[in-house]
Amino acid sequence: MAVDYTLYLVTDRKLVGSKDFLTSVKRALEGGVTLIQLREKDAGSKEFYELGLQVKKIAAEFGVPLIINDRVDLALVLDADGVHIGQNDLPIEHVRRMIGKDKLLGYSVANQEEAVYGEAMGADYLGAGPVFPTGSKKDASEPIGLEGLKTIKQCVNIPVVGIGGIGTANLSQLKSIGINGISVISAILSEEDPYCAARELKNLWKDH
Amino acid sequence: MAVDYTLYLVTDRKLVGSKDFLTSVKRALEGGVTLIQLREKDAGSKEFYELGLQVKKIAAEFGVPLIINDRVDLALVLDADGVHIGQNDLPIEHVRRMIGKDKLLGYSVANQEEAVYGEAMGADYLGAGPVFPTGSKKDASEPIGLEGLKTIKQCVNIPVVGIGGIGTANLSQLKSIGINGISVISAILSEEDPYCAARELKNLWKDH
Ligand code: NI
Repeated sequence: MAVDYTLYLVTDRKLVGSKDFLTSVKRALEGGVTLIQLREKDAGSKEFYELGLQVKKIAAEFGVPLIINDRVDLALVLDADGVHIGQNDLPIEHVRRMIGKDKLLGYSVANQEEAVYGEAMGADYLGAGPVFPTGSKKDASEPIGLEGLKTIKQCVNIPVVGIGGIGTANLSQLKSIGINGISVISAILSEEDPYCAARELKNLWKDH
Repeated sequence: MAVDYTLYLVTDRKLVGSKDFLTSVKRALEGGVTLIQLREKDAGSKEFYELGLQVKKIAAEFGVPLIINDRVDLALVLDADGVHIGQNDLPIEHVRRMIGKDKLLGYSVANQEEAVYGEAMGADYLGAGPVFPTGSKKDASEPIGLEGLKTIKQCVNIPVVGIGGIGTANLSQLKSIGINGISVISAILSEEDPYCAARELKNLWKDH
């Protein structure tokens, strides 16, 4: 699967405010999101499943791959395009075995050691961060900065996506590192119009 | 797999108080628990996995099957003996497909309709309740009482285990209904000595 990592949207229903969640997702896709990860930490399994069915349908309309955060069982049941796991999720080698070779496997890393390990264990891409301080992920650790991101990018051959506190103000600094794309939550979902927000981020990325 | 449903322990780490969780589980098994379900709603995937590895080892020492609550992926990774789902988890037909024919599938029901549906969809046993008011499960609904339990037992051919507010004081009333066993959380884990608590419950069940 040829994947475009340019603008990777990670969801969080709580950040859409008064906007409708599914409409926000659709607007973001219209604005140019190239990959979407359903990440709803507090959703029960049934709720997550039903949300997944709806988001999958929308993502399919745009030909954009749907990745499921953490829950391998949900990724399998939904027949999503992949699963994304972090350091506090199931061991990556088990996840790769469960999803098979064809589904995308994303892995969150914060340093070189985790990055090299992830690549060796079969990750298809890495989410590296948090690059900048962020309020979207409660459990986020210390920012790795541009230097940390550069180090990670240099030590692996798989695509690397920067995540954490990325927005229009700092996006140009990231592109120069040679990463494959940026991952955002609030920079799209918390904005008044997710379409405009996604479009602006994508244009800024292309122009640099 | 011939399963003994007599005394089914559902875990909740928060209820052991100052006691050690794994020691409490072991003591409960020594006391006569015949089936154990790892149910740790607030545990992250990695934490749940590591806890699962430890509980699996202890359960295996006693030849007692380990059931995983809700998380089919964890049941598969741990190669547990089964998975238990409720009305707010993944659709039962998908779960049965994912775990295959050999693993146990438990299903929580509160009425006849859910019970008949569960049996038709491939459940190996039902957890019916809450029978009595309970403080252990925050999301528990209205008690179904002995009458509700009887109705459920009568309409299915698979084993039925009563759950919810069951303890030494009301156990004898349940046995007369003809159910296959009782499921408890706090009646064992919150007790000072889970060994004595399990033993007493088991003896009371046998004597009636
Ligand atoms: Ni969960």
